[in-house]
Amino acid sequence: MAKENKISMEHGAGGQQMQSLIGEIILKNFTNTSAGSVGLDALDDGATIELDRDFLNNNKKAELVMTTDSHVVKPIFFPGGDIGKVAVCGAINDLAVMGARPLAVSSGMIIPEGFSITDLEKVVHSMNDALVEIGVPLITGDTKTVEGTALDSIIINIAAIGICDAPVRDCGLQIGDKMIVSGYIADHGMALLTKREGFEFNSDLESDTAPLWKMIEPLLAVQTQAGERAVTAMKDPTRGGVADSLNEMAQKSNVGIRIYEEKLPIREAVFTSCEMLGLDPLEIANEGKAVIGVRPECAKAVLKLLKSHPYGKDAAIIGEVTEEKPGKVILISELGSTRYVDVPTGDPIPRVC
Amino acid sequence: MAKENKISMEHGAGGQQMQSLIGEIILKNFTNTSAGSVGLDALDDGATIELDRDFLNNNKKAELVMTTDSHVVKPIFFPGGDIGKVAVCGAINDLAVMGARPLAVSSGMIIPEGFSITDLEKVVHSMNDALVEIGVPLITGDTKTVEGTALDSIIINIAAIGICDAPVRDCGLQIGDKMIVSGYIADHGMALLTKREGFEFNSDLESDTAPLWKMIEPLLAVQTQAGERAVTAMKDPTRGGVADSLNEMAQKSNVGIRIYEEKLPIREAVFTSCEMLGLDPLEIANEGKAVIGVRPECAKAVLKLLKSHPYGKDAAIIGEVTEEKPGKVILISELGSTRYVDVPTGDPIPRVC
Ligand SMILES: Nc1ncnc2c1ncn2[C@@H]1O[C@H](COP(=O)(O)OP(=O)(O)OP(=O)(O)O)[C@@H](O)[C@H]1O
Ligand SMILES: Nc1ncnc2c1ncn2[C@@H]1O[C@H](COP(=O)(O)OP(=O)(O)OP(=O)(O)O)[C@@H](O)[C@H]1O
Ligand SMILES: [Mg+2]
Ligand SMILES: [Mg+2]
Ligand SMILES: [Mg+2]
Ligand SMILES: [Mg+2]
Ligand SMILES: [Mg+2]
Ligand SMILES: [Mg+2]
Repeated sequence: MAKENKISMEHGAGGQQMQSLIGEIILKNFTNTSAGSVGLDALDDGATIELDRDFLNNNKKAELVMTTDSHVVKPIFFPGGDIGKVAVCGAINDLAVMGARPLAVSSGMIIPEGFSITDLEKVVHSMNDALVEIGVPLITGDTKTVEGTALDSIIINIAAIGICDAPVRDCGLQIGDKMIVSGYIADHGMALLTKREGFEFNSDLESDTAPLWKMIEPLLAVQTQAGERAVTAMKDPTRGGVADSLNEMAQKSNVGIRIYEEKLPIREAVFTSCEMLGLDPLEIANEGKAVIGVRPECAKAVLKLLKSHPYGKDAAIIGEVTEEKPGKVILISELGSTRYVDVPTGDPIPRVC
Repeated sequence: MAKENKISMEHGAGGQQMQSLIGEIILKNFTNTSAGSVGLDALDDGATIELDRDFLNNNKKAELVMTTDSHVVKPIFFPGGDIGKVAVCGAINDLAVMGARPLAVSSGMIIPEGFSITDLEKVVHSMNDALVEIGVPLITGDTKTVEGTALDSIIINIAAIGICDAPVRDCGLQIGDKMIVSGYIADHGMALLTKREGFEFNSDLESDTAPLWKMIEPLLAVQTQAGERAVTAMKDPTRGGVADSLNEMAQKSNVGIRIYEEKLPIREAVFTSCEMLGLDPLEIANEGKAVIGVRPECAKAVLKLLKSHPYGKDAAIIGEVTEEKPGKVILISELGSTRYVDVPTGDPIPRVC
């Protein structure tokens, strides 16, 4: 390895030093690195994904799903996770809310000169842990280095490929659907803010970062009596929080959404600190939650499945889809007053993911 | 759009401002944004790629190929290209040298606060031009912003998905193969260095950045009399240049490679300035070249096909694969002396791509 335990520009130069960094820090630490005849170990220009022919033969409309997210979260280590975990989970969750089984991910790292190789390895371990949990290989990657004066910390991009029979859209809500959120909201953003600002209160608050595929997979099989998929629309409420996801779903589906304040799963600590800081928990980022629209007759079945999975144990029905006010989200307070839940504008917590 | 023609932190916040940035700068400027039932226009959590069933049915061993590269090139605009063009071409070329037809790409942008939106749009136009040239859609993306103090310029990650019957490996060289390079080497790195340092000489030198799929596709159909694919191994000589690619191919294939100085296609201007600056053109990055191993009896046919394409018109056979010195690359000078071509160590031109 490098003489010093620091990243140097040469680690991104495509020559010997980069090869040894990749060999010692990347290859040694990823458990599953192959999805076809050319895996990461080959260190070729790319890697292959074998097409699942059984799946293809059984599903006339099989499609691949692709997604990408870069992560610039600050600080890179926080209670409940780090940039590596959030990068893998972010990609997996975007596939999951599209109804796609993850097949493989890529990892693009941009690292400032001087970055600690020990920290890099910690981040890589977190990526691997999340990938192993859902059995998804990392098959290809890229490492670039820049001067320490040009970038303040590591950036990780993960692109992911999945496969589905028919994608779950965010525009599929139907009037009467129940809206479910898969657990406590705003934990990720508030844990990060607490850590970043060094608040004394909430110091045991943890990010919810988690890979949701295994929680979501069984929901996709639930059908109405007419044989339609029970889940009509799904999103992961990351930046912009639940407020942003609900608005997008309402607008794209051209329906109204009504949610009930008393039904929102919010931890006491999160609620109190949001009040104190003037933040709206609905606008705070989550990294291990799904917002799900479900045909009403299947809502209980879906909720039960969710609750049977550790990541969904605090799931709740928070409202329903209405004909009135298409494109709008309305919050009904515990006292019965109503207000619009708007699309978030500002940036309550920058660099949240 | 934003009141000022500058990126603000809110452009990466996942709310209204980001939506309008994506709508006005991204969606309006990409010609082809769909590869399946959910395209970029849907602005969903990801997008789909329809599986090409005709291809799948005709090719028992069809595999997807995935690749990723982040780009941190400095300056972002240079003669012959910009960061957008190089990002798209980099991904396409990694697929092409794996023998894969590109199906779709993703785009992850990390933008510092204060970055010019006019420049962003120029970059987006270049990305689109390259994608249109090869008929490949951009189907999904991500935009993150960071403080202007945290990052000096835009970073673009492109991940790409392609499909092939059998991938072309970089470990497939066979003894006797001819080694071909598809045109003048070291143009990209030297154009960039010239621009960056403001050299007076070479001021008309241009980067070779180009998407190579259409040049490479016909080569894949060339077969030996025994019905084997004529192309045995392929790489795009980016960071580390031709020297790095040849060494990797020799090592992975466990063969020797002999190349002839007089046969290397190097522009006079590049040669002279490399001499002056003490640089080895073999170690300088290219962004529109391929290094190709070909069965000897097919070398002329492959060369002819290459030369018939604008990006391959200066292609040349530069050497051959030998049994001696497995894992080593030997350069024979014009006067007949020999030297090893080593794996590049340092970083002759940092932030070259
Ligand atoms: N951070 C990383 N994680 C996993 N694999 C990586 C990482 N960085 C590089 N690799 C792997 O190492 C090999 C070499 O990577 P490299 O980026 O040099 O290839 P390339 O894209 O062909 O070249 P260039 O980036 O110069 O265009 C590839 O197989 C790549 O998948
Ligand atoms: N730079 C970009 N180029 C192309 N498409 C983009 C770009 N940035 C975002 N998009 C598209 O805009 C939509 C919204 O992107 P966004 O990143 O908010 O989604 P997300 O990944 O689900 O959320 P998050 O990034 O907070 O996890 C997606 O459909 C995405 O493909
Ligand atoms: Mg390559
Ligand atoms: Mg996402
Ligand atoms: Mg690379
Ligand atoms: Mg999402
Ligand atoms: Mg590359
Ligand atoms: Mg995103």
